[in-house]
Amino acid sequence: MGVDQYGRVSVEKLRRKVVDATILVSIGWASSEIGTIQPMQEIADALHGRGIALHSDAVAAEGLLPIDMGKVPVDLLTLSSNDIYGPKGIGALYIRKSINIAPIMPGGGQERGLRSGSENMPAIVGMAAAAQIMASEMPQEVPRLMQYRDRLIEGVLGRIPRSYLNGHPKERLPNNAHFRFEAIEGESLLLSLKDKGIAVSTGSACSSKTLEPSHTLISCGLLHEEAHGSLEFTFGRWSKSADVDRVLEVLPGIVERLRVMSPLYQKEVKV
Amino acid sequence: MGVDQYGRVSVEKLRRKVVDATILVSIGWASSEIGTIQPMQEIADALHGRGIALHSDAVAAEGLLPIDMGKVPVDLLTLSSNDIYGPKGIGALYIRKSINIAPIMPGGGQERGLRSGSENMPAIVGMAAAAQIMASEMPQEVPRLMQYRDRLIEGVLGRIPRSYLNGHPKERLPNNAHFRFEAIEGESLLLSLKDKGIAVSTGSACSSKTLEPSHTLISCGLLHEEAHGSLEFTFGRWSKSADVDRVLEVLPGIVERLRVMSPLYQKEVKV
Repeated sequence: MGVDQYGRVSVEKLRRKVVDATILVSIGWASSEIGTIQPMQEIADALHGRGIALHSDAVAAEGLLPIDMGKVPVDLLTLSSNDIYGPKGIGALYIRKSINIAPIMPGGGQERGLRSGSENMPAIVGMAAAAQIMASEMPQEVPRLMQYRDRLIEGVLGRIPRSYLNGHPKERLPNNAHFRFEAIEGESLLLSLKDKGIAVSTGSACSSKTLEPSHTLISCGLLHEEAHGSLEFTFGRWSKSADVDRVLEVLPGIVERLRVMSPLYQKEVKV
Repeated sequence: MGVDQYGRVSVEKLRRKVVDATILVSIGWASSEIGTIQPMQEIADALHGRGIALHSDAVAAEGLLPIDMGKVPVDLLTLSSNDIYGPKGIGALYIRKSINIAPIMPGGGQERGLRSGSENMPAIVGMAAAAQIMASEMPQEVPRLMQYRDRLIEGVLGRIPRSYLNGHPKERLPNNAHFRFEAIEGESLLLSLKDKGIAVSTGSACSSKTLEPSHTLISCGLLHEEAHGSLEFTFGRWSKSADVDRVLEVLPGIVERLRVMSPLYQKEVKV
């Protein structure tokens, strides 16, 4: 899948890549890692009328972006509960009426045969309640998170030399700021921030156990060492304005201290 | 799969049925429907050394029967949480070290790649806690349930003419009593009992939406009308001795009244 330097799907490349035998295209609505939002409408338009089902995993976007299934012609949409502060262990798959899918788990025939096994009713009700709360809070919550995000991005790029924003500058999730810092390891930054009570991430949460650099960042054209020098900040329901202040207060010093110890940075200074 | 009139697997038939190409045999440890316990040790012995993995679904047996994986050479064992009063949406698969299984869901690689997706930690901890409570209660709880079960079986068979026990008379779950009543519908019995505040089941809970007779009962050699005249009583943590009294008090009258209205019963009386 071809993406640009911001991790955005190139609709032109997608159009060329799709062949007659293609039956399904699956593209995450937004990247939970670098925050880039995909041009779902353009993608759907490019695939329209070619007999290809379009699936989108919207777990990173739900509760943060308006997702109107009446407008964007996505055929299948995946949602999770724990990403909207609902109970764990439950999710939802939106299936447009024109689409037939086959179950991967046979059995008791629950959920019209699509997912056998006794339904987890408390979690189902919990997810629905979480979605209702999220929907009612979005008009206030999204601008609040965007303000934190923008203040953090501006502050970091302004105060820390040789720091860069990963992902799209405009088409990005309201709660996501993803940076790279020349010549230092994201992992060391993470540990230093942890000491100060600040929790960040260096990779996508669901594959943090591997030492491989993020394939998302590599797809954006970053070098291995650039990918390893990256750090993700996300804001959520319990984030406060003071949290942004705190990060901007401690991060420049941490980066400076780590760079003093970095052979990579020293070398570059000498050159 | 050949079973006898009590729904017990015939080890002889199983031995003949298994061929060189067989790689897996899966047999429920006990039937949640008719209560019959399978001879797992004999089954395991019959398959031993033939390169066949033996899987058992033990959700009906867990918390009611001792399941010692150090003794019975079952290779794979399925357990659920909600059957031991734990949270819904979680289960466990015991996998013996010698067995390799392939995942059906690829993804983030959680649980050693066998089940991708963020682990449902609250439910995992909840299931473990439920299992600990269950294990500590079993020595008192199992004899208590057996007493209810035996008193109900004795009472029903003694007081209601042409009533029979389905499933094995001795090798049966401590909490299960499954009857059939000549010439009446289990469904009518269920509704009449519901009116009296007594909840029973006419088929296995996970397929109660279909009108087909229970395939378990048909496998035991019952006729369609006999299968349809069957009713399952189960006891659990909140059952009381008075519940047994209540059933024995109302059930004979209900059966009698339904039989008066039954063309089937009338016919048989005339013959």
